[in-house]
Amino acid sequence: MKHISSKDLLDFAKNVFLKIGCTSQDATLAAEVLIAADRRGIDSHGAARMSGYVRLWEAGRINTRPSIKVIHETPSTAVIDGDSGLGLVVAPYAMKMAIEKAKIAGTGWVSVQNSNHFGIAGIHAMMALENDMIGIAMTNASALVAPTFSMERMLGTNPIAIAIPAKEQPAIVADFATTTASNGKLEILQRENKSTPEGWVQDEAGNASTDAAELKKGGSLLPLGSDKIHGSHKGYALGSIVDIFSAVLSGASYGPWVPPFPAYVPMPENMPGKGLGHFFGAMRVDAFRPKETYYHHIDHWIKRMREAKPAPGYDKVLIPGDPERAMEKITETVGISLNDKVYEDLKELDKKFSIHFFKKDL
Amino acid sequence: MKHISSKDLLDFAKNVFLKIGCTSQDATLAAEVLIAADRRGIDSHGAARMSGYVRLWEAGRINTRPSIKVIHETPSTAVIDGDSGLGLVVAPYAMKMAIEKAKIAGTGWVSVQNSNHFGIAGIHAMMALENDMIGIAMTNASALVAPTFSMERMLGTNPIAIAIPAKEQPAIVADFATTTASNGKLEILQRENKSTPEGWVQDEAGNASTDAAELKKGGSLLPLGSDKIHGSHKGYALGSIVDIFSAVLSGASYGPWVPPFPAYVPMPENMPGKGLGHFFGAMRVDAFRPKETYYHHIDHWIKRMREAKPAPGYDKVLIPGDPERAMEKITETVGISLNDKVYEDLKELDKKFSIHFFKKDL
Repeated sequence: MKHISSKDLLDFAKNVFLKIGCTSQDATLAAEVLIAADRRGIDSHGAARMSGYVRLWEAGRINTRPSIKVIHETPSTAVIDGDSGLGLVVAPYAMKMAIEKAKIAGTGWVSVQNSNHFGIAGIHAMMALENDMIGIAMTNASALVAPTFSMERMLGTNPIAIAIPAKEQPAIVADFATTTASNGKLEILQRENKSTPEGWVQDEAGNASTDAAELKKGGSLLPLGSDKIHGSHKGYALGSIVDIFSAVLSGASYGPWVPPFPAYVPMPENMPGKGLGHFFGAMRVDAFRPKETYYHHIDHWIKRMREAKPAPGYDKVLIPGDPERAMEKITETVGISLNDKVYEDLKELDKKFSIHFFKKDL
Repeated sequence: MKHISSKDLLDFAKNVFLKIGCTSQDATLAAEVLIAADRRGIDSHGAARMSGYVRLWEAGRINTRPSIKVIHETPSTAVIDGDSGLGLVVAPYAMKMAIEKAKIAGTGWVSVQNSNHFGIAGIHAMMALENDMIGIAMTNASALVAPTFSMERMLGTNPIAIAIPAKEQPAIVADFATTTASNGKLEILQRENKSTPEGWVQDEAGNASTDAAELKKGGSLLPLGSDKIHGSHKGYALGSIVDIFSAVLSGASYGPWVPPFPAYVPMPENMPGKGLGHFFGAMRVDAFRPKETYYHHIDHWIKRMREAKPAPGYDKVLIPGDPERAMEKITETVGISLNDKVYEDLKELDKKFSIHFFKKDL
């Protein structure tokens, strides 16, 4: 385990994005979005993916000089073609457009085709907060999840993020995969040689499993709810909605045809659309109530929820976003921890691109 | 168990709504919305609640001659004051307004204060379908659900419905409580003297329980996901979002202050808003892509999902809405089954209001 300051990690990431051809502005943005994951404690989506993005670029699947275009719009909606750009850059562009629409029409909704992985959903939804808006961000991803009653991978972990502004209280920021457990959690268990709790995965034949390496053997993640009796049809519905809003509305690829993140995995045949899809929303709070009244009540809502009686063995009730905010404070002061594999990955990128960042060993 | 045709049940419900003072138009609408639950197999929300609505009216908590008013609007949003009307009438009014907004602005979003229970969420979302729109409906409800890590009831079962139009395939209609199990399912188990699966409820002190009568003893339903390790913080986030969109945006009451359905339960003190809240959305599919292209792809999406390989022991993979559609066909031909308690309830209403419907014993 190595420690690095978030500023240094940001600088390094920016350098890598510059080396693969991004403009300075895009490299800064992409680095900020990517490293926000590490800063907020969602390691699986940050520096750990840096080399994966580079390999996608090497495979010609990412265009680092995209011309992002609006291909359709109405007063409150737009569809954007990301031109195979980094999702880390395309997503903020689209979210900004949702916010601009909301300024005029009250709400703005933007669906995106022809994009790539966009990092953590929460960071995009949070762009709405400083505009006194509720922000929504979702994306599809390559298929790892079996629908209820199925043994076949049909949907990605398809996360949903919703950011709700508050004033005296910190904002509510929900950001979650529509599965019972994320792939990132499986990776941690694999490193520790542990098995998963029941209800996280099933094997290739559709049988219950607790093998943390099940996805490598053709198994699947289970939708939020785990099994029918615990509501997995609800998680399956949520994952489906994310896929449809992100791709069927935009013209991106969907279901089992979503392009894979690992560059060595061949692209699916007969793709019904272009690249990955995302969906963004922004709703001005004063499109519903006067701003001050809204803030009074959302603060009251949050405060009351925090005062809910804790169950035995727990200190307090959390608000969506609390754990990530706590991690942000920690990484700000003590820096970001990189596991050995990620550290070696970054050192290799450093060498490959002659960035000379890791001359000083961490 | 008694059987009654859906037409007869509709007529009877309409008569009851007339007797409590609804206009003929409102009585017809309220009956259609209410009995849609029985027709679609969600017994807990249909005729079984008829007498509950009457008791709320008797307690002066429902105004059967409301003047529903728009109290704020922008091109794509509105807030509606339901004037304590039946949610069964206020909700279609609000959903219609969302649809009208979407015709012009591309999407429409309506938050509602001062309403009452609106029946099943799905039926409101489905109003969008014939307009080539995606429909969204949600509502808060009185607190029965404990947030993750809490022993206190803070949120209702807060359902979300999303209806997505298709052409050759039937529409996708997801309609689900943001809890692991619904209250209706607990009621069925109580009648059968059975316990619940693990992960549905906890007792008053916050301990795991499988007692189907736990809610009557001060216990709570658990958010979708059941416990933290299976993602209950996601279900808790979803339930929170429904509450905030429905009530904090509109000026309805929220969290532990949502008015109870049983008229004998006193109203909460210090309510921060008026009545129950709902939230509706409509998105024109051609606000994103040409209609024909959209329909081609959504049909393709649904068809592919249906072809997913079934897991051992299952025939086929379902699409959200399939079970309710199957029930609709059954109840259309063989009629609606009423359990003895509901049948006695209806007979009593028949007598009370001299409707003379049940002179012929079923």
